[in-house]
Amino acid sequence: MAEASGDNVIFVGKKAPMAYVLACITQFNDGKKEVVLRARGKSISRAVDVAEIVRNKFFNDAKVKDVKIGTEEMTNQQGEKVNVSTIEIVLAR
Amino acid sequence: MAEASGDNVIFVGKKAPMAYVLACITQFNDGKKEVVLRARGKSISRAVDVAEIVRNKFFNDAKVKDVKIGTEEMTNQQGEKVNVSTIEIVLAR
Repeated sequence: MAEASGDNVIFVGKKAPMAYVLACITQFNDGKKEVVLRARGKSISRAVDVAEIVRNKFFNDAKVKDVKIGTEEMTNQQGEKVNVSTIEIVLAR
Repeated sequence: MAEASGDNVIFVGKKAPMAYVLACITQFNDGKKEVVLRARGKSISRAVDVAEIVRNKFFNDAKVKDVKIGTEEMTNQQGEKVNVSTIEIVLAR
């Protein structure tokens, strides 16, 4: 996950997709060349939605530079260790 | 989506992840070098789960060769055209 340099990373969670789309637009309008979308579990499909909306509706010159998938170990509310899938989508203009 | 040659494509839908994991294992055990997982909408996160389970629990030599995201136009039950996100994950041994 080398492309993520900190402040250009957007963590996609349970809000409506447009909240994260707006965050992407703000980053690109601030002059960032790359925006990294990260999500885990069920939010993964929302991260893909966000990337596609940004690319198709707002920045037609934005490309999906890289998509990585992975697994993170988390502790659930019962104190058990569970594996959760992750995604990292790098959008670049 | 050039890697998909037909019978090595697994469409990930709403079943439990292990159903698709088993389909992957069967393909690899049949001698396939590549297996393609495809999903759309909310099943995207399940497709990532399937890829990660296959890679981490069953075939440690399997690599994620490629991940593509995209958009498909579908017609919903009300007859309206809606965009749905898609993912294609290529696993290779």
